[in-house]
Amino acid sequence: MSGHLTIALDAMGGDLGPEAVVPGAALALSRNPALRFMIFGDEAKIAPLLEKFPALATSSRLIHTDQFVSAEEKPGVALRNGRKSSMRLAIDAVKEKQADCVVSGGNTGALMVMAKMVLKCLPGIERPAIASLLPTMGREVVMLDLGANLECDAQMLVQFAILGSVYSRVVRGHDQPSVGLLNIGSEDMKGHDEIKEAANILQQIRFPGKYIGFIEGNDIPMGKVDVVVTDGFTGNVALKTAEGVSKLIGHMLKKSLKSSPLSMIGALLSRGALNSLKSEMDPRLYNGGMFLGVDGVCVKSHGGMDHIGFANAIEYASELAARNFNARVAAEIAELMIQKKDLAEQETLSSEDHDLKEKAS
Amino acid sequence: MSGHLTIALDAMGGDLGPEAVVPGAALALSRNPALRFMIFGDEAKIAPLLEKFPALATSSRLIHTDQFVSAEEKPGVALRNGRKSSMRLAIDAVKEKQADCVVSGGNTGALMVMAKMVLKCLPGIERPAIASLLPTMGREVVMLDLGANLECDAQMLVQFAILGSVYSRVVRGHDQPSVGLLNIGSEDMKGHDEIKEAANILQQIRFPGKYIGFIEGNDIPMGKVDVVVTDGFTGNVALKTAEGVSKLIGHMLKKSLKSSPLSMIGALLSRGALNSLKSEMDPRLYNGGMFLGVDGVCVKSHGGMDHIGFANAIEYASELAARNFNARVAAEIAELMIQKKDLAEQETLSSEDHDLKEKAS
Repeated sequence: MSGHLTIALDAMGGDLGPEAVVPGAALALSRNPALRFMIFGDEAKIAPLLEKFPALATSSRLIHTDQFVSAEEKPGVALRNGRKSSMRLAIDAVKEKQADCVVSGGNTGALMVMAKMVLKCLPGIERPAIASLLPTMGREVVMLDLGANLECDAQMLVQFAILGSVYSRVVRGHDQPSVGLLNIGSEDMKGHDEIKEAANILQQIRFPGKYIGFIEGNDIPMGKVDVVVTDGFTGNVALKTAEGVSKLIGHMLKKSLKSSPLSMIGALLSRGALNSLKSEMDPRLYNGGMFLGVDGVCVKSHGGMDHIGFANAIEYASELAARNFNARVAAEIAELMIQKKDLAEQETLSSEDHDLKEKAS
Repeated sequence: MSGHLTIALDAMGGDLGPEAVVPGAALALSRNPALRFMIFGDEAKIAPLLEKFPALATSSRLIHTDQFVSAEEKPGVALRNGRKSSMRLAIDAVKEKQADCVVSGGNTGALMVMAKMVLKCLPGIERPAIASLLPTMGREVVMLDLGANLECDAQMLVQFAILGSVYSRVVRGHDQPSVGLLNIGSEDMKGHDEIKEAANILQQIRFPGKYIGFIEGNDIPMGKVDVVVTDGFTGNVALKTAEGVSKLIGHMLKKSLKSSPLSMIGALLSRGALNSLKSEMDPRLYNGGMFLGVDGVCVKSHGGMDHIGFANAIEYASELAARNFNARVAAEIAELMIQKKDLAEQETLSSEDHDLKEKAS
């Protein structure tokens, strides 16, 4: 691939379809000229848009298909009937090593199911997770799972901790990323059995991050850790609640500033500061759900995103591909397997120890 | 009780103890002169504070105890060893009908376990839930469970919907409160089995609210519904994430406004508007976790609250007591029992219907 990275794009996903994907690819290309694109979708819609971006046109190959997966389609149905869909063909391109990664703004469930079926999981990973970066008081946090797995056992949570740590280390350059398990209190006794077991394992294994214990919801935006690990149900609700609160405060701020002539003048003078806040919190900056644990790089762009958001999703995907994220994960999982037997022995000992303590107390 | 409402106060709970409780009670009394108080705790600490508030002193009875439940104590230990604690004596006062409700800023787990053990659940309620009011784009929403039950089955979620609806109707005066089940998508197929079953039951029963379907995290601050129903794990994480995001944005706003002399002048001119936003979002306004479903009114004040927050928790408790919330819940649950047999028959039919549809598709 001679220094180039090839991105397979599902041009038909998301609310805007090619209207966001084509200009988004053009923007990503302007930031990183080493990118090359395979664009899958309806030629009649894509070709006229490509004409507006000559640099992109020469860096892209357009592969026509008139099939696409709709936002409402059930994942299982999409899997069976969507073999010629733009989403599926884009994933196939990664499988066949024609592309280094795939980005789609389409149906999340369908994308996850197809990616898992076509690309398979990395060896040792039971289930992939959706991860995303979020703004905090400190440096950005990577949080997972954001909705791929409604219920997660301890083993899955441990794997998510490894996936998140490798991401934080390899892609974000954080040497010893701190990892927290999202819970309803920071005391050891809090939470359900799965999370307690995961905590117990994370305290004992060597992995690329540093497990610091349970964290609570408010610790996420405070930037207490570099990696937040949770199940897909809780993660999805927490992420969307955060988005909603951010929107609510923006709305109330605007309303407050318009409430009197004096405060309107004040707002005008502070416009630069208010705009910089707005752009720091811009959800487009954080667009891109990464399917970590799949043997191939697959990134989901939010369906409602415009081209600026889509370009950021392309950037996430190309970073994962360029930095060999999956090879690093595979190495860490192999290392974990070696520790596993050792760990199993320790666990037996520690649970005996625990029983003794319980009896003594 | 001759038009008066008597509030039992655990003066030793919370970070500030009597320093928040006594001035908080004085503030609540100034807003509602019909209140009377029983104050449980260390006389040596409480009496000097009471001297500063003569109106409160004449409206209160101070009951000395030198035992209290610490924030770190395990709930089970507190239950066994804390029979003479300020928390327990305050709950006992409600049980013995000396007080109409109890407010504590102490250990949440201990308060919940004690309240359940002493006051018992309302007939037909399996487990109480912690509920709280939250600000939204529209009118305030009541959300539950916020941490009492880590895992909830369909029956519990349905009971929470009823508890929340009765609260919204009786205490907030919303005639037909809308109720949503918190999920990771609004489509029927989304979520785990318990939540789908709860949705199925809520669609069929008559209850004081109107079930509108699944909602997502961002719908909470948007004010899409009057009552948000979820399990205690998800609810706790969502609530605390919302608090954290709100703090993060406040911090970033302050930083932005200080970034240049011009925006500092602007902020000065907009000070009134910014302060009004701050007070609208003031967490003290929403302080008070209500233990709904317990046969007796018990409200938990946030441990970190000052007297203003504590006064609001007293207000929530007195509203629940004054409006006979529990009697209304008992009536609704009795009504539900009558529907239950009918519902069970319908459920068998609808699941047969569902099986047929599955086979046909």
